[in-house]
Amino acid sequence: MRSKIKILGIAGSLRVSSFNKQLLREAVRLAPENCEIEILDISEVPLYNQDLEDVLPTVVQALKKKIEEVDAILFVTPEYNYSIPGILKNVIDWGSRPYPDNSWNGKPVAVMGASIGGFGTVRAQMALRQCFVFLNMKDVKQPEVFVSKAQDAFDDKGKLKDETTKAKIVELIKALAESVKK
Amino acid sequence: MRSKIKILGIAGSLRVSSFNKQLLREAVRLAPENCEIEILDISEVPLYNQDLEDVLPTVVQALKKKIEEVDAILFVTPEYNYSIPGILKNVIDWGSRPYPDNSWNGKPVAVMGASIGGFGTVRAQMALRQCFVFLNMKDVKQPEVFVSKAQDAFDDKGKLKDETTKAKIVELIKALAESVKK
Amino acid sequence: MRSKIKILGIAGSLRVSSFNKQLLREAVRLAPENCEIEILDISEVPLYNQDLEDVLPTVVQALKKKIEEVDAILFVTPEYNYSIPGILKNVIDWGSRPYPDNSWNGKPVAVMGASIGGFGTVRAQMALRQCFVFLNMKDVKQPEVFVSKAQDAFDDKGKLKDETTKAKIVELIKALAESVKK
Amino acid sequence: MRSKIKILGIAGSLRVSSFNKQLLREAVRLAPENCEIEILDISEVPLYNQDLEDVLPTVVQALKKKIEEVDAILFVTPEYNYSIPGILKNVIDWGSRPYPDNSWNGKPVAVMGASIGGFGTVRAQMALRQCFVFLNMKDVKQPEVFVSKAQDAFDDKGKLKDETTKAKIVELIKALAESVKK
Repeated sequence: MRSKIKILGIAGSLRVSSFNKQLLREAVRLAPENCEIEILDISEVPLYNQDLEDVLPTVVQALKKKIEEVDAILFVTPEYNYSIPGILKNVIDWGSRPYPDNSWNGKPVAVMGASIGGFGTVRAQMALRQCFVFLNMKDVKQPEVFVSKAQDAFDDKGKLKDETTKAKIVELIKALAESVKK
Repeated sequence: MRSKIKILGIAGSLRVSSFNKQLLREAVRLAPENCEIEILDISEVPLYNQDLEDVLPTVVQALKKKIEEVDAILFVTPEYNYSIPGILKNVIDWGSRPYPDNSWNGKPVAVMGASIGGFGTVRAQMALRQCFVFLNMKDVKQPEVFVSKAQDAFDDKGKLKDETTKAKIVELIKALAESVKK
Repeated sequence: MRSKIKILGIAGSLRVSSFNKQLLREAVRLAPENCEIEILDISEVPLYNQDLEDVLPTVVQALKKKIEEVDAILFVTPEYNYSIPGILKNVIDWGSRPYPDNSWNGKPVAVMGASIGGFGTVRAQMALRQCFVFLNMKDVKQPEVFVSKAQDAFDDKGKLKDETTKAKIVELIKALAESVKK
Repeated sequence: MRSKIKILGIAGSLRVSSFNKQLLREAVRLAPENCEIEILDISEVPLYNQDLEDVLPTVVQALKKKIEEVDAILFVTPEYNYSIPGILKNVIDWGSRPYPDNSWNGKPVAVMGASIGGFGTVRAQMALRQCFVFLNMKDVKQPEVFVSKAQDAFDDKGKLKDETTKAKIVELIKALAESVKK
């Protein structure tokens, strides 16, 4: 029996009722049968400091181990100042260190995001993909999932209202899983 | 008597013997007579969390006050994973919050950076400029200061060896000061 | 008597009934009293070829002369493949040549754009701003003008329906003019 | 007997003695046994104009047919104004049209480039990768081939002098071929 494809889901927000955390939970719920998305808690990852690399902080060791164990990564990114949040980039930076021990190396990856405004984190997602070149991550290009006006996108139970968006999320995770099998 | 133009210098590294901190100290030393560069300590800025915005952390209040007091900003950025460090972006994110109280708004800004490799943080600087559009910061475009092979660029006393680079730093700070006067 | 601020308007499309040409014509109409926007015809600008630089094509000579005569530039860009159209970049490339005779040097510049889809050329505008660093152009950062769903944005007479968008265009041109005066 | 992997090589320059054309010819020469790189002549591709889409120009029809026939694409890009040349973007634009008949769709792709300056087209390559998201092209991330100081990089016979660069080109084409097999 083939085991499930393991995906690590990382939302780039520390806010408790973050729309991007909500979106990630929807992805967990919508994931196809053959996939399992585990949500990473990034709240304890410290600020990156190269001086700490001699003895990696325990939480960073656990972060790197987790990344290396899974088959693929799913980033769910807010957009801050037309780019990715510092706290998300901070997690990415730790995962790539100490050089050349880049835990992200070769991993298939997908991106989605939710914003209050009308452009659904399109700039943040583009900025994030730029990192994948150095990190050597295989990013799924299409479909793209942009959740605009996030404050209106979820119902009382935290579920996405729009069927097209849900279908795109399913399609994106399927494409990510396909990318793993290759 | 006209007082000096006040510039806030922010290096995007927590490492004690960071090349970018060194580069910033060189900028302080090389600044023309009519400019004064104050170095910001970012080591105590916490990870951004919107839930903390109701009562801003004291260090963030001080950060925002400092940004607002100065005439211009000088970012000195390392390049991590072909973009700006998470910890630098984190400082930028805090400074822009809570919405719409963006402390960076309208500030003239200049960028420089140092890297171990051969490309002098060119990708990080480009990624940083993307944020300036939202932040509404007036970035000096030319000259650009890229310090490559930083491990060989400074002498025993931490001073830059290359005269061309030093001249460019002077030119950049002058252009920044000029941008303030307008 | 102070003469008007001269702005050169460049739409990045050759299509006769282009939405971006329409948007540029609206900018001409909406421009404040103290500004005059002249529309540049780019249809005859040849493909860039360095081998032609010894004797610049007549149309390129005229292009460079026109850029140098005006006080500021207004780009109105479609978005093709998440970036600026090749034909617009081609005009930019010619204007910057032969090295180091960059006709765009130091010019204040503003950007707007119209798209069929929902994101109003946001990625093309970001890609365009990246060129301004080399070109040494002073880009107005805010406000930004993104015309989404362009097929529904204009009335029968080619005028924009949305008052907020029109107000933003006025504000953008005013900011551009302000940038010239400095 | 398995036939060779067919790669279409596209250099973004019209100049006869272009360094990027030279670099592409080196790639042809260095390609591993199982790969065949055909060089595309882009000199006759007209400026993109949507009004010409009803009856595609013959040269564009041939361009699209050629893209669709091959297994993978190799772009060799100069850097103009910190981005890709207009003439290269123009070829990309035609290949993606008329919507939704995107000939580039799903193709594996690799990028390299040569510049006179010291940064080997790093910004142009990044700008080019941004297009791959819309085009849905699978770009090889590593290794990257940046040829700096191109005027000194080739010998009298147009061959690259530096063995490390040659090895990277081989490695890049192998990675591209590997991407095709999947």
